[in-house]
Amino acid sequence: MPRLPRKNDAESIRARQETLGLDGAVVEHDLTPYARAAESVTGVAVIPVSVAQLRIELGDYELGENGEVVERGRGVDDVTVPLAHTEGGLTASMQRGSRAAGTFRAYVLHDRITRASCFICKDADQALQLARWIEDNLGSMREFLQAADLPELSSRARLRETKTHVVGPMCHVLWAWTTGDAVGPNMMTRNSYALNMGFVMEQAPVKPERAMLEANMGGDKKPSYEFFQSGHGKTVIAEATLTDQNVRRVLRTAVDDLLELAWAGTHGAVASGMQSVAFTPASAVAAIFAATGQDLGMVGTSSMAHGTARRADGGLNVSIRLPGLEVGTVGGGTTLPHARRWLELLGCAGSGKVYRFAQIVAAAALALEISASAAMATAGSENFFRAHHERGGLR
Amino acid sequence: MPRLPRKNDAESIRARQETLGLDGAVVEHDLTPYARAAESVTGVAVIPVSVAQLRIELGDYELGENGEVVERGRGVDDVTVPLAHTEGGLTASMQRGSRAAGTFRAYVLHDRITRASCFICKDADQALQLARWIEDNLGSMREFLQAADLPELSSRARLRETKTHVVGPMCHVLWAWTTGDAVGPNMMTRNSYALNMGFVMEQAPVKPERAMLEANMGGDKKPSYEFFQSGHGKTVIAEATLTDQNVRRVLRTAVDDLLELAWAGTHGAVASGMQSVAFTPASAVAAIFAATGQDLGMVGTSSMAHGTARRADGGLNVSIRLPGLEVGTVGGGTTLPHARRWLELLGCAGSGKVYRFAQIVAAAALALEISASAAMATAGSENFFRAHHERGGLR
Amino acid sequence: MPRLPRKNDAESIRARQETLGLDGAVVEHDLTPYARAAESVTGVAVIPVSVAQLRIELGDYELGENGEVVERGRGVDDVTVPLAHTEGGLTASMQRGSRAAGTFRAYVLHDRITRASCFICKDADQALQLARWIEDNLGSMREFLQAADLPELSSRARLRETKTHVVGPMCHVLWAWTTGDAVGPNMMTRNSYALNMGFVMEQAPVKPERAMLEANMGGDKKPSYEFFQSGHGKTVIAEATLTDQNVRRVLRTAVDDLLELAWAGTHGAVASGMQSVAFTPASAVAAIFAATGQDLGMVGTSSMAHGTARRADGGLNVSIRLPGLEVGTVGGGTTLPHARRWLELLGCAGSGKVYRFAQIVAAAALALEISASAAMATAGSENFFRAHHERGGLR
Amino acid sequence: MPRLPRKNDAESIRARQETLGLDGAVVEHDLTPYARAAESVTGVAVIPVSVAQLRIELGDYELGENGEVVERGRGVDDVTVPLAHTEGGLTASMQRGSRAAGTFRAYVLHDRITRASCFICKDADQALQLARWIEDNLGSMREFLQAADLPELSSRARLRETKTHVVGPMCHVLWAWTTGDAVGPNMMTRNSYALNMGFVMEQAPVKPERAMLEANMGGDKKPSYEFFQSGHGKTVIAEATLTDQNVRRVLRTAVDDLLELAWAGTHGAVASGMQSVAFTPASAVAAIFAATGQDLGMVGTSSMAHGTARRADGGLNVSIRLPGLEVGTVGGGTTLPHARRWLELLGCAGSGKVYRFAQIVAAAALALEISASAAMATAGSENFFRAHHERGGLR
Repeated sequence: MPRLPRKNDAESIRARQETLGLDGAVVEHDLTPYARAAESVTGVAVIPVSVAQLRIELGDYELGENGEVVERGRGVDDVTVPLAHTEGGLTASMQRGSRAAGTFRAYVLHDRITRASCFICKDADQALQLARWIEDNLGSMREFLQAADLPELSSRARLRETKTHVVGPMCHVLWAWTTGDAVGPNMMTRNSYALNMGFVMEQAPVKPERAMLEANMGGDKKPSYEFFQSGHGKTVIAEATLTDQNVRRVLRTAVDDLLELAWAGTHGAVASGMQSVAFTPASAVAAIFAATGQDLGMVGTSSMAHGTARRADGGLNVSIRLPGLEVGTVGGGTTLPHARRWLELLGCAGSGKVYRFAQIVAAAALALEISASAAMATAGSENFFRAHHERGGLR
Repeated sequence: MPRLPRKNDAESIRARQETLGLDGAVVEHDLTPYARAAESVTGVAVIPVSVAQLRIELGDYELGENGEVVERGRGVDDVTVPLAHTEGGLTASMQRGSRAAGTFRAYVLHDRITRASCFICKDADQALQLARWIEDNLGSMREFLQAADLPELSSRARLRETKTHVVGPMCHVLWAWTTGDAVGPNMMTRNSYALNMGFVMEQAPVKPERAMLEANMGGDKKPSYEFFQSGHGKTVIAEATLTDQNVRRVLRTAVDDLLELAWAGTHGAVASGMQSVAFTPASAVAAIFAATGQDLGMVGTSSMAHGTARRADGGLNVSIRLPGLEVGTVGGGTTLPHARRWLELLGCAGSGKVYRFAQIVAAAALALEISASAAMATAGSENFFRAHHERGGLR
Repeated sequence: MPRLPRKNDAESIRARQETLGLDGAVVEHDLTPYARAAESVTGVAVIPVSVAQLRIELGDYELGENGEVVERGRGVDDVTVPLAHTEGGLTASMQRGSRAAGTFRAYVLHDRITRASCFICKDADQALQLARWIEDNLGSMREFLQAADLPELSSRARLRETKTHVVGPMCHVLWAWTTGDAVGPNMMTRNSYALNMGFVMEQAPVKPERAMLEANMGGDKKPSYEFFQSGHGKTVIAEATLTDQNVRRVLRTAVDDLLELAWAGTHGAVASGMQSVAFTPASAVAAIFAATGQDLGMVGTSSMAHGTARRADGGLNVSIRLPGLEVGTVGGGTTLPHARRWLELLGCAGSGKVYRFAQIVAAAALALEISASAAMATAGSENFFRAHHERGGLR
Repeated sequence: MPRLPRKNDAESIRARQETLGLDGAVVEHDLTPYARAAESVTGVAVIPVSVAQLRIELGDYELGENGEVVERGRGVDDVTVPLAHTEGGLTASMQRGSRAAGTFRAYVLHDRITRASCFICKDADQALQLARWIEDNLGSMREFLQAADLPELSSRARLRETKTHVVGPMCHVLWAWTTGDAVGPNMMTRNSYALNMGFVMEQAPVKPERAMLEANMGGDKKPSYEFFQSGHGKTVIAEATLTDQNVRRVLRTAVDDLLELAWAGTHGAVASGMQSVAFTPASAVAAIFAATGQDLGMVGTSSMAHGTARRADGGLNVSIRLPGLEVGTVGGGTTLPHARRWLELLGCAGSGKVYRFAQIVAAAALALEISASAAMATAGSENFFRAHHERGGLR
């Protein structure tokens, strides 16, 4: 096969389309807005977007001076959540969970994103010396980043902490950043690279043999326990109280059924070595990500979840903890027309909106979780069967 | 906020759009094809699709009588891979990896998808009795499924094995199915439900207190070790041999640099408790999934990966093992217009194509892996920096 | 320091003792029985042995023709369990758990021990060919082992299954054995080596570049999910029903307290990435192992456990699953005088006793678990505090 | 069976021995020293102790004011390591590894032990409030512990940090302590209990519904990722450089063979979901623990290990990282006669010795690791086979 042209000018695009024999819907679309989004853009994918309505008590959060997430107030809001997917039943199920929950409550706990670099030294002795020096020089590194007048550096990505982990001659380093309303992988990557090459390799009293920008301690796009425990992106909790009545009337099951399912499902997760305990958070996360221009490669990590259910006065307390929701409301795919419009529907387009957005994603995931759990629990299974049969028209 | 109508008739759709104040690109699209794909369809998401060219030696596989994957032959094919994403640099990087590899080789090892049900019994004694009975009645269950003249049942989902795991009074059961060219979650769910309710609960010598359709032993949309080891969907390996020359000229690094990175990256993965060892398979998997109508909620599980690098004669042997690639070429989102067209470009639309498709995804993931690794390795980091800076125009 | 002599003749032993200035209790002991147990034997360690009394309904198990564990009957037995340890409170706590439980019930589910060899091939293609050939040649390998008239081979270690796992050019192989009443690491190691070198490397159609006797797929003395799920040694469950009255009077807590603790403890285990869910099985396992001559290096793996608690009629059903109890009643340390005597006290010395022994260990672990849980639960914590304070005299 | 007396007076002991029909070696031993070590002491277990000689460059460490481990100097020492075990070949193998290594180098990185309590609140909102209050009140808690004039409290256990982890209505808390030269589980348990009941439950602005002393976030006696990453007890690294010549002459293998084994063994560990990467650290840890009166229930956690091998100038750099070595040189079993004597042989009896001891354990584990690896590597396997056959006389 001939080598296709790679550029995104109109001629190159057309040449690719013709060589590949593409016509119809996939190419009948103005590609201009996408010319800078990727190389070799040739057409489009279109995914239908459905909507679910949620009522959420949202926290009003800001990033504090030291990188802590500070709550300024709380308020209830009605939100319409856009869901880009083709899974029959999903949207209706989330809507049912929303109805059962009444009002969700959402909280942001933490905000950090890490780049996991690694320095290979001569031996463990030198790696330990390097680690101590790095831990001791956090202040100098911040100054270095501010002083360095490099156009590549991002001033939005602010270095907050550093964590070293020495194994043999390797000194792994987690550079922990906040990145404002962007997810920030690129800005923190550039800054981490600058730290590695411009600060550590230049100034460290022990010269490492090698510097590697990323060596997997951080779990970038790959689920890990480090990620599950310490978080990556926004750490968020959503919870709700299901009244006995709603469990019975809306979910058509019983609190005991849901508790038994939660019990068996948690032990099933343990038995299978799952690093999450939940039923189907990825379906909700993926659908919102696809609608709002988030990085779909982060669906797996952003869907790591720890769900709980516990009997409460008059019903059931249910919650989900998403330790590493990698979301942004500026930059990347969020700038593209469709994504921007769906973010606007959520009241989440642009600066100052990322904590609101993170909370909505968590609440939506919990809404789906509630309904899917009801469908899996004993009394509900029959309904689940019927629902899938009736709705799953595409399958 | 008022409750929106839920149906997908033209009037309801328009009512939703108007109530939500949606106009412009997100709603200027014919939603007719999507009316059966989801409830409350209201608009669309559009993602640009770029393309990368790969040369792959593909196996020609069929499912054998006993559910084993049989190779009938092998042949080299040039493939153009559609990538729906907005990550600057990704497509160019995959293309670079493809060029460095020359020809990829791909293999399908295994094909099974599981539904993890759970029966709660009075105690462990009864759970053990139930487990033994289930293990002994595989043949009867197959007959039951064939004989049952229920319209809900799918004859495409064939029960292959069953694995029980007793913990206390719980008898977890993994029902293992093949589902033809579909991913098959719905068909195996219906059949599993029928087995639970129509066979086990009716005929078991020990009556369980509860049957739960899903209790997490199987890792549905949630990464787990069970999934990583035993697989879920298609288990595929792609590999390539990078010549010294290509490593130097195309990747602008050295075999030793890549080996050192693989070493540090594997130990970093261990240190952080990663259930995958690879660099960025999810980026490739997500981009192909979004273009071809796959379930985006399965990006995390389908991206679990085990990558290796080892010095070979004249270069470097690199490989990636995807234990659970949940892909389909029929059913679900693959039937929708854009997805179908991109599958056609791959020669993967419709029946008899799923093993071809699985191999292409694995090869594409490896292509990206090769280039991303080169960018992270010492000599390559500077280039990576520059590449991201130059190309990442959206960020 | 001078190089000490290494042999175990009386003169060498004395020379070591004198050079090291050892006198008193550690050397005033007849070392004759230990001359073949280890090299450079120089003295002894003495650990006090306390006893706890348990009533257990034990299964009478045999290994079936195909390596399955078959139950021939069940009967209740009073057992006195020897516990070698110096942890104040442990023995009394196990005794309290025993009293609360009344009669334990124990079950053996499975019996296999594995050696995880690895063949490195030229590439994945060859590794896959090798894997298929190995899977297809189980019968021939059994014949090879029987026909091979090598004194090194053990006829007690019988090859039952083989499981291959290909990653890149590696073909990992789990050789699964039964080893009679011995734990059997040495006998299966010799036989596995013979298979690797005498069968695979000689006869495989694809010649591997390297054969490695052990490459960690099996979890020998190292906890792993493979081990936790599939088992290693004996897979055993013990369970008991705690009446409301016993929970209150003996454990001085309440069923609800224990259930809340089980809930929080399971979620704590998930949050911390534990591969077990239990409170303190290792304390019980270690104490019995030390008394009975088991391999103390296997305490960690043999203590992997999955505990559950669930409300039952009139009380609480509690259970523990030990997937990989690596115990023997013949061979190794069990042949030495003290160990043998303590095994005799259990009615577990010699051939045909290993399944009985495994069940007793599981019941003892559960007894301790019950009492320790009660101590950790809300109402019980104060008692725990006092108990440790009063009894922990050595600390 | 009659209920045995429980006390440790001479008459009760004799009554137990007679009722159980115990005579001979197991009871012919003065039990006086053990009367306070456990309840119902009835006899003894005796394990032979062999010795291996190691040369180690040891750091001279102290605990700094803020709980950091400070190195005051380094020096080379010849150490004779007591090994209580009955595994033929183990001692000789460790000795061989020692000879191959020449001089080991050891480092202490960190010293903390944690008790993982949990407070169950009404909902996540209250759990989050509690967590923030706990994080903010570290100083007050330290003062509370110092001011509280309770005889139960230990002043040796010093509270260093606290880490909270909220999941649903649970506020898990890791209380992190230093405990001097003792392992310290009892002293930190008492202090943690006092904090829970006397400080948190009394003073927290949000009153939790329940306080649980331990809910598994910390991995007490159970391996976990939290433990593997963050450590528990002493975090130690030992390393050595194997010259090409020693690899060839002493280990009878080659550097390439060892590297290939390390590569396959690391990938095998990943494939099987191991939370350690090493070959057989538990054998060394268990043998030293049994000789020196350590808690054998901690063998599994203390043996979690991360081993590496990397080509170095003129040979191979090998290392092992033990993140959570739970060792003490005062208190508990270390006060008993035999244990004390073996600790003295190591120069590790009593106060101020625990860091020395931890380093020796790590070096001994590495010594065994080196030799065992050589035995597993290709060229070495044959020797391993022969060695086990010749030496494993008991099996």
